[in-house]
Amino acid sequence: MKQYHVAILGATGAVGREMQKLLAERGFPLASLRLLASERSAGSTVEWNGERLPVAAADRDAFRGMDFVLGAAGSEIARKYAGAIAEAGAIFIDNSAAFRGRADVPLVIPEVNPADARQHRGLLSNPNCSTIITVTAIHALHALSPVRAIVASTYQAVSGAGAGGIAELLAQTAGKQATPRVFPHPIAYNLIPQIGAEQEAGYTTEEMKMQQEARRLLHQPELRVTCTCVRVPVLRCHSISATLRFAHPVSVQEARDCLAKAAGCRLCDDLQAGQYPMPLTVSDQDLVYVGRIREDLTDACGLTLWCCGDQLRKGAATNAIQIAELLTGK
Amino acid sequence: MKQYHVAILGATGAVGREMQKLLAERGFPLASLRLLASERSAGSTVEWNGERLPVAAADRDAFRGMDFVLGAAGSEIARKYAGAIAEAGAIFIDNSAAFRGRADVPLVIPEVNPADARQHRGLLSNPNCSTIITVTAIHALHALSPVRAIVASTYQAVSGAGAGGIAELLAQTAGKQATPRVFPHPIAYNLIPQIGAEQEAGYTTEEMKMQQEARRLLHQPELRVTCTCVRVPVLRCHSISATLRFAHPVSVQEARDCLAKAAGCRLCDDLQAGQYPMPLTVSDQDLVYVGRIREDLTDACGLTLWCCGDQLRKGAATNAIQIAELLTGK
Repeated sequence: MKQYHVAILGATGAVGREMQKLLAERGFPLASLRLLASERSAGSTVEWNGERLPVAAADRDAFRGMDFVLGAAGSEIARKYAGAIAEAGAIFIDNSAAFRGRADVPLVIPEVNPADARQHRGLLSNPNCSTIITVTAIHALHALSPVRAIVASTYQAVSGAGAGGIAELLAQTAGKQATPRVFPHPIAYNLIPQIGAEQEAGYTTEEMKMQQEARRLLHQPELRVTCTCVRVPVLRCHSISATLRFAHPVSVQEARDCLAKAAGCRLCDDLQAGQYPMPLTVSDQDLVYVGRIREDLTDACGLTLWCCGDQLRKGAATNAIQIAELLTGK
Repeated sequence: MKQYHVAILGATGAVGREMQKLLAERGFPLASLRLLASERSAGSTVEWNGERLPVAAADRDAFRGMDFVLGAAGSEIARKYAGAIAEAGAIFIDNSAAFRGRADVPLVIPEVNPADARQHRGLLSNPNCSTIITVTAIHALHALSPVRAIVASTYQAVSGAGAGGIAELLAQTAGKQATPRVFPHPIAYNLIPQIGAEQEAGYTTEEMKMQQEARRLLHQPELRVTCTCVRVPVLRCHSISATLRFAHPVSVQEARDCLAKAAGCRLCDDLQAGQYPMPLTVSDQDLVYVGRIREDLTDACGLTLWCCGDQLRKGAATNAIQIAELLTGK
């Protein structure tokens, strides 16, 4: 079996660490694993799959000989090294928002639009974490009846802002540190209804991604999405309350039957038994859990549901590695 | 100025304590204040406005001589004593769900439908806490253009389940107690998308209240509401992400101008300055804060917004006392 040289760019952040773990856990056919980080983190070593791996400083020469580079850094770093990665002949699967809007860069969820991945020219983007979770939850329903509109309210964990977000919530909860650094306001016992800066018409960048990226993922350029993104004092897993308007009515039973078989999903929908998706039970898993499926009381063509997924795994690291697996033909 | 004899039924719970505090804070014209609780709490004393007041056990004789009884207990207790309160000639303003569905019992938010209060026959109901906050936030917009439908997702604080909810969250957060007693699952660093038992079509009682009660409050029997109620690890204040569909379009600017003057509301809507309603800044206040007002991208007649209010105050104690004030003609 062919083996691949893989680098993680931003290997020591929350998503980079998850990528390390998942490459081992999924048995990705690795010839070598190179961990790249900022100057600040370089020089350390990391325990990985029974080995000790060095963390090297990312520079333009660091990508030579690589087959895949998994991008777990921010947009600025991704833009800085995309050229060098291309010159090295590696395929760059980037988790940042840097290239998500580019028509020549496939935006891919392997369960949703795998064929798009094959159009790549050396660069692919992982969608936004909340968008991955929402679209993974609804793509099978969209195949039953096209989704025309979504009203979504998110409940996003602090680890969406990286390892620093977890540290800030835990410190504030313990009363150790009052000053917000990662978030614009205190997050312990609070809700912050702003993720990202203002983009247009009062919507934040994070909110507009749900519409822009869902349109590309579902090949539905007219899809309309009203999204409200809220940071909540949860460590891990993003949850989304989503009300969907379909082209034709879909019954609750049809939706349940469909989601029970949908790729990437687990149906978890028994209110009387207290079974529904929750961050604590969904954490550290790859499937998106879907429950609370009900008729939309405001629209005969609507359904409403609640979904929850681990945004560090399916919302980031897992999805990127699944794209690499798809390209290796695994 | 006329003074009134007032009893609080359920005086030692989270809402009852808030009622004590607010009667003093608002300068309600009290001739006397009687604190009534279960056998378990009776016999203690409470510091109130510089006095020590005894807590007495509620019984059928406890309401004699009262002008108002503020109900801060559960539905069962409210039903048990409603007859005795009526026989005593007192006006019962009840915060439980016991009588909210009865057509002969006005359901009142003083800023929204004060005239309904005057139809009372000795018994009035306080609406559900999330419903009070949502309807207070939108009633002025409804006067601009009738609201036909609402898609709401709530973010409800643990104190909505009483003082025990606060204790459970704090204990779990401190790692002191793992077993959920007040909530059906752990709430620290978690989200529980169930409040109340199943009522119909997969919706919980708490979710259906938003439609049933908003219809009565807004005199809009055809109003359609799709609501998802979620418990979040916040101590105090319920927040609601609400997408409204109006009979005629309302612009964001019209909505802002309207909400800046709306009774019971404070406009808090400057994304670039990081100004929006949040539990930590809204706690222990009577106004419902409204912000993140945007066009609904899925409907030309829609707006979406985020509101937050202290559910122990405006969502419960304040609203009940405001009803009493209304009936005294204050």
